[in-house]
This record gives sequence, structure tokens and C-alpha cells, in this order.
Amino acid sequence: MTQCFQKMAAPGRKVLIVYAHQEPKSLNGSLKNIAVEELSKQSCSVTVSDLYSMEFEPRATRNDIVGCLHNSEQFNYGAESWEAYRKGCLTTDIVEEQKKVQEADLVIFQFPLYWFSMPAIMKGWMDRVLTQGFAHNFPDCFDAGLLKNKLALLSFTTGGNEEMYSKGGISGDIHYVLWPMQHGILHFCGFKVLAPQICFSPEYETEEKRKEMLTTWAQRLKTIWEEKPINCTPEWYFR
Amino acid sequence: MTQCFQKMAAPGRKVLIVYAHQEPKSLNGSLKNIAVEELSKQSCSVTVSDLYSMEFEPRATRNDIVGCLHNSEQFNYGAESWEAYRKGCLTTDIVEEQKKVQEADLVIFQFPLYWFSMPAIMKGWMDRVLTQGFAHNFPDCFDAGLLKNKLALLSFTTGGNEEMYSKGGISGDIHYVLWPMQHGILHFCGFKVLAPQICFSPEYETEEKRKEMLTTWAQRLKTIWEEKPINCTPEWYFR
Repeated sequence: MTQCFQKMAAPGRKVLIVYAHQEPKSLNGSLKNIAVEELSKQSCSVTVSDLYSMEFEPRATRNDIVGCLHNSEQFNYGAESWEAYRKGCLTTDIVEEQKKVQEADLVIFQFPLYWFSMPAIMKGWMDRVLTQGFAHNFPDCFDAGLLKNKLALLSFTTGGNEEMYSKGGISGDIHYVLWPMQHGILHFCGFKVLAPQICFSPEYETEEKRKEMLTTWAQRLKTIWEEKPINCTPEWYFR
Repeated sequence: MTQCFQKMAAPGRKVLIVYAHQEPKSLNGSLKNIAVEELSKQSCSVTVSDLYSMEFEPRATRNDIVGCLHNSEQFNYGAESWEAYRKGCLTTDIVEEQKKVQEADLVIFQFPLYWFSMPAIMKGWMDRVLTQGFAHNFPDCFDAGLLKNKLALLSFTTGGNEEMYSKGGISGDIHYVLWPMQHGILHFCGFKVLAPQICFSPEYETEEKRKEMLTTWAQRLKTIWEEKPINCTPEWYFR
């Protein structure tokens, strides 16, 4: 009974929203705000990483390692950041993001699709925060990834409409675009991936339709803790 | 006869290499150097955008537009950068990259695969340089994209090996990873896409094998101008 309650109820659950939009008044901004509101109502504790406001650094460089390098003769970002993670020598902004991820039960990524992927500022968050040793450590990847007890969800807006992103459409099935992000990043780190929340082409929709996108998202969040993750295998993407 | 000669010979051809690696001594650095060498030998004119050395800005922000915004009430990056392109108000670093692209017959992207995609610094190059009006302008996209007379080629290294990136492998077919980059970015802008140059897992290979990767690339470049672009349709990717 207790277990069942814990499974369904939200109080105490921690959510991190990694948010990448320059404009608070954008639909992405509203989707983020609505998530904060709805999840707070459920007594979840919600943290937002507002990447543009933070002027988050997307470039993976030597500056990410405080102090001496393991091999200063030939810089290898993957090897150095792994080593720095173990020694506690990663730069502060990375450590802070890792703490937020570590505490979260669910991480929501809110962004506009740029070039069939996430904006560079968010890609930089992936490149720099999901360090080996912290998020994965071969063979601890995919189902055994180090973040395996967490949920993740991509929530994004597109420029193209749903028809363009259908199987016969000019942009191809939207599932194709999800593969590198959901399987290659999230699943690789062990996250259980919830179905994406996609708002197609809000710029070309009516105000009414945009409001509907917000209420649909708010509605979904009411029962988000009851959702089952997708089966993150090639079959889900390339049907 | 003249036309045939022009088609096959390299002298005068212009190549832009967009390069993203922190370490000149890396395999990526060597692959870049070998391309510069080989293409120069053919009397091509070669330009390199060394993104980390340039400290290239990956974040798409209001700073990309010099002077007043079209709509300062609600910032829309796509709309503002399009408008700024038409008015000649884009920031200098973007304009310089666009000039290089404009002059190039072939653009080579040299990078290590980060998270099933390009590093954030290169994603930022795509986000900021391939402005609407310059690279595409609906319906001038895909085969009608504004860069349709140019060739593009992705040359990258991976962490995982070829077996992992095969159809039944844990990372899935490498073609899946290529879709957003080749179709969603390059093909969208009209580029004719040459087959990718992929060096699987050089870190786990012998020195001899890594040298072989370099000579294979140099060898391929000798006849690069004779290559036919791939057929950039879903069938190529999702066989």
C-alpha cells in the first residue's frame, strides 16, 4: 500500500527542467512556466536551469578541468573530464549541474528544435555535464547507465508541421530525429525515457491552438508519474 | 571537353574545412592537416575554420544582431537573424563564416562524434551561420536550398567501434546518426552530400591502424572531385 502510494504520488519528487530559449514570452518559456506551476502544485520540488540566462558555456575545453591535466602533452577532453570527475577537479558550473541531475527524479529538456536537434547551448550541456564516471562508465551504459533510476523527457517545439515530420513527409518521421537524443544521449546514460512532448509549428498556428498546446502539456503533467517509459529500441524509432 | 575537364580537375576549387577539436595532435587534427595538404597539392584553395582556436561562439543570442531588433518586445532568433541577414546587420563572426561558405565549392566538417552528433561548438556554427535568406528560404530548401551548387562532407571519429554502430549493434546503424546532420542540415540547405568519412574508435586502435586511417583519407581526397553525391533520401539511411 505504501509502495503503491509512493509510486503514484508526487510530493517530494524532484524535477530538473533544463530550458533553452532566449525569450521568456516564447511558447517554450510558457511551456517551462506551466511545468513549474503544475509540478509545484503537486508538491514536487522543481529546479530550472535556464541556460541562456545563465550564459551557459557550451564549449568543451581545457577550462573545464581545474588545475593540472592528467596528460598536458595531448589534450583529450573525454579522458581529462573523466579523470577530473574522479578527482573532484571539474569546473564549478559543471559540478552544479551534476548535483541538480543527481538529485532529480525526472529531467525535462525544454527547447525549440534547431536543425533536427537541440540548440548548441543545450548540446553543450550534454557534452559537458554528462561526464564519464558521473553519467556512464562503460560497460555501465544504456540500461546499466549510471542515471538509470531517473526519468527524462524531451519537450520541444518545431518549425515544420506534423505532416512534414511524417514518414512520407519532406523532413521524414519525427522519430528519426529523436534517436540520437533519446537513445544516444538519454538512454546511453540509463535514463528511462518518457514519450516526447512535441508542439508542431506553433509559429504558424492560431493563438487558440497555442493555448491548447499549453493546456495539453499541463494536463499530461498531472499524471506524469504514472507514465511508463517508452521501449527505447530501434523498433520504436524506425517502424 | 572543357566542361569535362572542369568537372574533373581541382585547380581553383575552393574548400572550406570547419574543424572542431581542441588538440592539434589529435587524429582529428591530423585528418584536417592531411586534407589541407592533399587539397593544396591539387592547387585547391583551402580555408580552415578552427572553431576552438577561434573561440567560436555557439550560442544563438540577441548579440548576433547588430543594432535594433525588428521586434524587441518578443525576441525570435530565426526571424531576427533572417531580417538581419537581409539588412546586413549580422555580427561580424557570422558574416565572415558565411563569406567562406559562399566562396567554397566543398565544405568538409571535421570533428569527433559527441553524443551521436557534432560537438556543441560545431552545432553552434550550424545554428548561427546557416541563416534563413543565406542558406535556405522556404520553399528554397532541400534540393532547392540556397547552397545547392556546393558539396559537403562529414569527416568524423567515433568512440564506439564499427560493430557497435552496426544495425544489430548496441548503438544502432551509424546511418541513423547521419540523418539529422546530413539530411536535416546539409541537404536542407541544398548541399550535395558526399559519403561520410568515418574513423571508428581510433583511441582503441593501434598506431598502425590510425596511420592507415590517415592514408585512406588522403587517398580518397585525390579523387574527391570525381565522386557522386549520395542519394540523400530515407532509403539511404534506414535500409
